[in-house]
Amino acid sequence: MFPSTARLMTSCLFLSGAFFSMPATAEPQDLEPIVNAGETVLEFDWPAISVGTAEYAEGPTGATVIRFDNRAAVAVDVRGGSPSDVNAAYMELGYDQRELDAVVFSGGSWYGLEAVTAVATALKDDGIRDGDAFAVEPNIAMSVGSIIFDFGSRRLNEVYPDKKLAQAAFRAAKPGVFPLGAEGAGRFARSGGIFECNAYGGQGAAFQQIGDVKIAAFVVANPYGVIVDRDGEIAACYEGEGWPEDVSVADMLRSLPESRAADWSGPDEAGASRQNTTVSLIVINQKLSPAELERFAVQVHTSMARGIQPFATIWDGDVLYAVSTQEEEPAYWLPDLGSLASEVMWDAVLASVPEQPVAPEPVERGARSPAQLKSLEGVYEYSEFVSVEVTARRDKLFAKAVGERKAYNIGKDEKTELLPTANGDFVVPGRYPHTVRFSENGEMIMNPGHWAQYGKRKGR
Amino acid sequence: MFPSTARLMTSCLFLSGAFFSMPATAEPQDLEPIVNAGETVLEFDWPAISVGTAEYAEGPTGATVIRFDNRAAVAVDVRGGSPSDVNAAYMELGYDQRELDAVVFSGGSWYGLEAVTAVATALKDDGIRDGDAFAVEPNIAMSVGSIIFDFGSRRLNEVYPDKKLAQAAFRAAKPGVFPLGAEGAGRFARSGGIFECNAYGGQGAAFQQIGDVKIAAFVVANPYGVIVDRDGEIAACYEGEGWPEDVSVADMLRSLPESRAADWSGPDEAGASRQNTTVSLIVINQKLSPAELERFAVQVHTSMARGIQPFATIWDGDVLYAVSTQEEEPAYWLPDLGSLASEVMWDAVLASVPEQPVAPEPVERGARSPAQLKSLEGVYEYSEFVSVEVTARRDKLFAKAVGERKAYNIGKDEKTELLPTANGDFVVPGRYPHTVRFSENGEMIMNPGHWAQYGKRKGR
Amino acid sequence: MFPSTARLMTSCLFLSGAFFSMPATAEPQDLEPIVNAGETVLEFDWPAISVGTAEYAEGPTGATVIRFDNRAAVAVDVRGGSPSDVNAAYMELGYDQRELDAVVFSGGSWYGLEAVTAVATALKDDGIRDGDAFAVEPNIAMSVGSIIFDFGSRRLNEVYPDKKLAQAAFRAAKPGVFPLGAEGAGRFARSGGIFECNAYGGQGAAFQQIGDVKIAAFVVANPYGVIVDRDGEIAACYEGEGWPEDVSVADMLRSLPESRAADWSGPDEAGASRQNTTVSLIVINQKLSPAELERFAVQVHTSMARGIQPFATIWDGDVLYAVSTQEEEPAYWLPDLGSLASEVMWDAVLASVPEQPVAPEPVERGARSPAQLKSLEGVYEYSEFVSVEVTARRDKLFAKAVGERKAYNIGKDEKTELLPTANGDFVVPGRYPHTVRFSENGEMIMNPGHWAQYGKRKGR
Amino acid sequence: MFPSTARLMTSCLFLSGAFFSMPATAEPQDLEPIVNAGETVLEFDWPAISVGTAEYAEGPTGATVIRFDNRAAVAVDVRGGSPSDVNAAYMELGYDQRELDAVVFSGGSWYGLEAVTAVATALKDDGIRDGDAFAVEPNIAMSVGSIIFDFGSRRLNEVYPDKKLAQAAFRAAKPGVFPLGAEGAGRFARSGGIFECNAYGGQGAAFQQIGDVKIAAFVVANPYGVIVDRDGEIAACYEGEGWPEDVSVADMLRSLPESRAADWSGPDEAGASRQNTTVSLIVINQKLSPAELERFAVQVHTSMARGIQPFATIWDGDVLYAVSTQEEEPAYWLPDLGSLASEVMWDAVLASVPEQPVAPEPVERGARSPAQLKSLEGVYEYSEFVSVEVTARRDKLFAKAVGERKAYNIGKDEKTELLPTANGDFVVPGRYPHTVRFSENGEMIMNPGHWAQYGKRKGR
Repeated sequence: MFPSTARLMTSCLFLSGAFFSMPATAEPQDLEPIVNAGETVLEFDWPAISVGTAEYAEGPTGATVIRFDNRAAVAVDVRGGSPSDVNAAYMELGYDQRELDAVVFSGGSWYGLEAVTAVATALKDDGIRDGDAFAVEPNIAMSVGSIIFDFGSRRLNEVYPDKKLAQAAFRAAKPGVFPLGAEGAGRFARSGGIFECNAYGGQGAAFQQIGDVKIAAFVVANPYGVIVDRDGEIAACYEGEGWPEDVSVADMLRSLPESRAADWSGPDEAGASRQNTTVSLIVINQKLSPAELERFAVQVHTSMARGIQPFATIWDGDVLYAVSTQEEEPAYWLPDLGSLASEVMWDAVLASVPEQPVAPEPVERGARSPAQLKSLEGVYEYSEFVSVEVTARRDKLFAKAVGERKAYNIGKDEKTELLPTANGDFVVPGRYPHTVRFSENGEMIMNPGHWAQYGKRKGR
Repeated sequence: MFPSTARLMTSCLFLSGAFFSMPATAEPQDLEPIVNAGETVLEFDWPAISVGTAEYAEGPTGATVIRFDNRAAVAVDVRGGSPSDVNAAYMELGYDQRELDAVVFSGGSWYGLEAVTAVATALKDDGIRDGDAFAVEPNIAMSVGSIIFDFGSRRLNEVYPDKKLAQAAFRAAKPGVFPLGAEGAGRFARSGGIFECNAYGGQGAAFQQIGDVKIAAFVVANPYGVIVDRDGEIAACYEGEGWPEDVSVADMLRSLPESRAADWSGPDEAGASRQNTTVSLIVINQKLSPAELERFAVQVHTSMARGIQPFATIWDGDVLYAVSTQEEEPAYWLPDLGSLASEVMWDAVLASVPEQPVAPEPVERGARSPAQLKSLEGVYEYSEFVSVEVTARRDKLFAKAVGERKAYNIGKDEKTELLPTANGDFVVPGRYPHTVRFSENGEMIMNPGHWAQYGKRKGR
Repeated sequence: MFPSTARLMTSCLFLSGAFFSMPATAEPQDLEPIVNAGETVLEFDWPAISVGTAEYAEGPTGATVIRFDNRAAVAVDVRGGSPSDVNAAYMELGYDQRELDAVVFSGGSWYGLEAVTAVATALKDDGIRDGDAFAVEPNIAMSVGSIIFDFGSRRLNEVYPDKKLAQAAFRAAKPGVFPLGAEGAGRFARSGGIFECNAYGGQGAAFQQIGDVKIAAFVVANPYGVIVDRDGEIAACYEGEGWPEDVSVADMLRSLPESRAADWSGPDEAGASRQNTTVSLIVINQKLSPAELERFAVQVHTSMARGIQPFATIWDGDVLYAVSTQEEEPAYWLPDLGSLASEVMWDAVLASVPEQPVAPEPVERGARSPAQLKSLEGVYEYSEFVSVEVTARRDKLFAKAVGERKAYNIGKDEKTELLPTANGDFVVPGRYPHTVRFSENGEMIMNPGHWAQYGKRKGR
Repeated sequence: MFPSTARLMTSCLFLSGAFFSMPATAEPQDLEPIVNAGETVLEFDWPAISVGTAEYAEGPTGATVIRFDNRAAVAVDVRGGSPSDVNAAYMELGYDQRELDAVVFSGGSWYGLEAVTAVATALKDDGIRDGDAFAVEPNIAMSVGSIIFDFGSRRLNEVYPDKKLAQAAFRAAKPGVFPLGAEGAGRFARSGGIFECNAYGGQGAAFQQIGDVKIAAFVVANPYGVIVDRDGEIAACYEGEGWPEDVSVADMLRSLPESRAADWSGPDEAGASRQNTTVSLIVINQKLSPAELERFAVQVHTSMARGIQPFATIWDGDVLYAVSTQEEEPAYWLPDLGSLASEVMWDAVLASVPEQPVAPEPVERGARSPAQLKSLEGVYEYSEFVSVEVTARRDKLFAKAVGERKAYNIGKDEKTELLPTANGDFVVPGRYPHTVRFSENGEMIMNPGHWAQYGKRKGR
């Protein structure tokens, strides 16, 4: 029933390349932004829009800045039950003037809003905007934006995008390129919590031109719902073992809450919660009045209920920004523009989904000697919240969380065996891939690869 | 590409039964409400909800009243760009008390709001509510509701639901039965204007119980968009001649504005406009706080973008009311309830679509003598806006609109031939079925059957 | 401390002229609208605005219609906790087009909203608006408006303004004249419930021209708060016996809840409640964009907190409509216009206050013989809720409420003596004037005069 | 007509004490927060509320943090036309849970919003809140807040409150003390622009307890309107020369725009603009539901139109936060609480006004020798926007602005004479006090004292 991406994922992702070696419990001043990362990008021809991203590998988490250097008109549509924003109340007033400098998306939950204000101050600090004393309209920078929740059980630390990161993204912005997948603000997005899919998510974009009208859609998709393609298939999901073959999304939805569990038996005690959000931006170059721009926002945002199901739940913080660069005279009816833009946005949502990593299969024990395993023993610290104690017993290796929180499949109550794999890594079996690697410099790396978490051995 | 309903429609509809003979330009005092009409109904087991409908055949138009005799909590979500409502500002305040007596849907555009206030006054006039002088909360009846646009080119008159009609519907209300299709407020609904489908629409309902939780959805679907089923097919549409085979809804949307025309050539000058709306009501018996009920409204309303594409455009007046009867203690998570209710609402939308009438084929001229045709000559008045002059010339019969407006395919600029059919009726060929019948009592009936328009011969 | 109006009121009001003799429990079809009543009017020079009022003396209650025959732009600001409205959600969308036909204010609590829809249908029924099939914008009439609560303990019946009444007001509208005081929608307004002033209220208006800019304010003031003039004095109040001399409004407010009682001892058990509202309309002829018109509405509505204290409480349904006739090009800054309009609105609020009736003093018993008193015995019915039984015992006359509710100072638990006065009426002593007159045709009239309530003797 | 504060101000303020010597065009990393400054404070007994302020003398500008360490319920009411906020859209959802950690007010226009997010991250960085992976509700810090505009012509630099400043204020917070006047976020507030008063403003607070109910009001008053006391007098204003004696606020308002000018001649070309705002916070300990708390916010915010006239204009960014600590069971009716709180808020507004400095009178020239004056020559830089060139010519000293902007009364087009005063300072005559001092270390200080601006001599 689900597309092959989730099932046939090769292991290349988590084997590829050199990994960072990084300190556990990194201090903010030690974090260094990585800008404009990502190989898969959307290229689009629209000089009025520049995009920059920055990430902290230590999270990983990041931010995405979409700049409008010639200022633009903006409207906002807040629909989720857990939204965040800066200056939404101002945007709702419906003024005619083009004031928007940038839309900022960020990880880090509410703390990531620092990324939004950071872009306004960068515009000021860089001398692009000033509070011009005698102008009728003070020349104040206007950056708006929203965040996604990327804390909780998905990361073993709470590094968040800060001023330094966002200003790096702002200053790295360039026109015509948008990194797709788990980059920028979508660096550690997830989707499908409603069915416990826990698929990896990201940020997406799409672009279409019709006549002189240009439409671009940008999205960071981190929804409680699943992402659905135009054939009605779930785009990415770590399926449960007991799920029926060929079950449709409609059947899944109708069968709630039973369909949430791996074996279709209903939810366990694990509390799902306000850990989701889809934040999006639709841009058009046709001139629209404030009322029209607001209707455009509403139509496009509403349409996203097709590509994300369910959408706009109480546990999502869904916010859409609609921007008009006001470059073109009116050419099309608004409902047509809204319909076209809705398809572009659906494309963007689908483009946000990265390849889903799969864990290697365990092999027979014994490839490593008891002494070798013994040498891995220790307590590895991932953050002030998460530490894991590794112990060896003959040809078996065990792990147990000894901090405040558990570490993915490694719980706090009893030891979990780490099973060996062919390439020297270990694996913790379960619905979700959970690989463990011990590096030469004394780190215990959970899920080495794009979403790696680094634990540093204590006392060594 | 489209389901067979639109294509294989038998002609039974417009041949069945005796037709009303009714005066043109009916005065309001002469109109008589027909209550609880309709053969196809949803039956559901929920004593807290009573439903009554009433219609004026002279429109035809009507109203639907959903009563909560034990009062209920209500929230509202306004999303369309052309909404109407009574007391939305009050509902948005989020008070805890159960105050709602009834939700009223009506045809008649803004004039139909008289149906909403009429139910409040009926509650007072019937002594069910009074302004209780010394109660802490004055005992005022609370009816809320919204209307659909069913004027414009679709009807040759502007009869609207009024106080008498709505109070008749109110007083006819009974639990457990909801008429489906072109009844009540959906008496002259349409759908699919965005592609010029002009399919006939109506009102729908669906019900589901899960454990002790009951969910009911009611909708009057009159959208600018098309109604889409779970296979992605348009539920009803008078397709254009030049439409590609097997074109998908996504392709249609992506190809706007070209896809609007019958020959895929883009829109003609005919202005589409604010003549649409989907008004809906979702009811649940689980206790929800005001904030939760509002989130429930938002999630369900947003989800309707799947079954109606596009949804919530500037030319729609989409409003959803969410009601909790507060009968059951909390049992399910809100996003699950919202997801379940969204499927029920989609079912309701699909249940609103009536069978689409098709016109008979024309036959050879000559079945009626020139004298017979001559006897049909005259000016037929449908309303103060629409009159049609019929003239005969040998074996041909012609019609021409001579009032302010045209009459479906019969224009004002030149004569249109009325082609004979096998059963004695005439037909005006075109994309949409347009049958003409001359009755024995001197009426010229357009589209005899469920959506008939009656013209009375002048001066006789 | 309070101005003399409340204290020096002559008795001319309730002695003047012939009174109606009217049936108790009047049926709606028997009620006849009285249009444009009232001697004290504001005259103003602005042809774009027409005003009509209509009243049912049987309430008394009424409605006020302000017409804009050339259509106008409108914004709305809802601030009270108990508002009512028609189509507020539409007005909030910020469209540019001039669509407003009329603003309607009405008594009758939510039932009075029938007056609002009635004006839209009158515009249609009279052929001024039609649903024009082929116009880009359907030519639908737009009437908006709000109501005041004038039920509860203040009236002994629940006659409400209905379609007939509102359409009579609509059709009686003429430019340049606005009746002041207890007329139209303000026919039975009250003010000052917070301190149990229970002053009589009404509707007010004021007008100012500055250069080519015209500003008009209309208001129906029925607030929970007191009306305050520019010297900080309460404009009208039936003061309590134990109130300190020269107490300021600020002191009264600071001393809540003690200051609510007549003897400054705090509230008794009588529940105040959502029985208040100030609805208002500010009109300007300068062109304003939708956002500007909304800001104008907000500034003026907020400013009313000076003339009504407190304002916008949870028990008020305060709504302000702001209208621009768009007749003049921009000439003044918006905050200046808002400031000027705020002063005009304060003037309008003050102009709403009618002279306060005072009750005659009781005289020695004995002017009427026991037989004469005996002849007054009987049960007098004021409505289905209120009946009063009158009994005589020697030279004393007693009354007792025998229906569901009490009748002003005449309670249900024990007999209340009706004390004779010099002119043949009776009086029930208390904080508020309560006069009783027995008419020659067998009626028992409470508070004969402008706010009279008519009880018909049963069984005679 | 105006109170003596504005007229009789002694010169002690700007003569008192040692002044900072500080670099012009200070870099953010060089700025050091001064916490909890200010001699005049409100003391209040309410352990649930802690207050901290921090300021940069180089602005001067600052921020104020009001902490609720036990979390509180919050509602928001946005009324001005130029508001700023963080997470208003979330607050409007009406959730029941107590989530608020802090309300933050700040200078710096939109850039100052960095102060709001900084408090949330401080709560996280200090380990008070964490994103608790397995809690049903993620334990995310919630800080909200708004800013005032304190740029433009009032300051010669654009130093803004940043993360460092706000976190210093957060960490300095303590219960029971609130600095009054030009401190914290009110460090460079102004009032009365509508009449070009340009009075110095600040932050105010007031507290009242009635029974067990505690009410506290906090405000930063920087309004376009004037602050008005309960006698109807303007609390602070640099009056114009030609103003009539004893003109009332109502007369001033009615006479707009003439009353704006010093000589009552109407506005000059100088564009007033969106450079104002009053941000406020009302706190109560009685339990209120979300809907009640919102009504409380509305009533209190509306009432502020008495103490600030006009209020909520398009050029103000007025936002009120209403907070309930939920410590006490309901004891009073909401309109009473709102009325009481409104008086407390008025007290707070009045308490915000600092003593207004007055300039010394000029004296005869000649006290300093031409050589002494010559030694003061040079170009003094206040910021990247403002530099002033000083030149001497015999016994006269002149100044001229040579950067982008003028410097108060010292313009760019021609030289302005600096007149000597008795204490060695100079003065530039005009409606507003403008003193100039040359310090021993080569600085040219504008308005030495609390609102001093420091210019550093270039090239020395």
